[in-house]
Amino acid sequence: MKKINLDEKFALFNEHWTPKIISELNDYQIKIAKVEGDFVWHNHSDTDEFFFVVEGTLFIEFESETMELNAGELYVVPKGVQHRPYAKGECKIMLIEPRGVVNTGDAESELTASNDVWI
Amino acid sequence: MKKINLDEKFALFNEHWTPKIISELNDYQIKIAKVEGDFVWHNHSDTDEFFFVVEGTLFIEFESETMELNAGELYVVPKGVQHRPYAKGECKIMLIEPRGVVNTGDAESELTASNDVWI
Repeated sequence: MKKINLDEKFALFNEHWTPKIISELNDYQIKIAKVEGDFVWHNHSDTDEFFFVVEGTLFIEFESETMELNAGELYVVPKGVQHRPYAKGECKIMLIEPRGVVNTGDAESELTASNDVWI
Repeated sequence: MKKINLDEKFALFNEHWTPKIISELNDYQIKIAKVEGDFVWHNHSDTDEFFFVVEGTLFIEFESETMELNAGELYVVPKGVQHRPYAKGECKIMLIEPRGVVNTGDAESELTASNDVWI
């Protein structure tokens, strides 16, 4: 029975675009990631994806617009919607999605990360 | 396609212990609440419950200990675990749980709130 402090968890790693699992909610996983630079266009055909910005600014490019998320802001990308996250400076985010989701969805690439790393 | 700013959402209401839905993630709901004072002992027999503190301090009393959650801290209360949240001063929290969960779980009381209010 141990609470989770986001700052403490973020202090444990420095690499970008590699989500780390910090807790589970039924069959969903709470993950954190540090991101900077460009991610790949992708979608998740079978699940929505929750993004919450803890620090910094995350941009999510969609086909029709680009969303700017700052600290304290969130967005749930609907399943199947093509999106490309990017960040101009380092940004800390919390993600929630079903256990087993791969970060690059349908678009396997060099940015595809393990989906089973706890921190 | 509209992002959600927690501060803006919290500014829309003042009552305590009345979770408001701000978004959905598949069949889960993202809710926010302002809390202050004592809640009731209860449990949710069929689901875990995600608590994230946005501002202030939330205490969660369990049978064996009391957890103190400050801003930037989270805890997922496992299904079936008796717990009693309380806050000495006003505290702003984000909750995530399956659609339809009632705030007081198995313990209907005067604190039982609607589970279908969007904000």
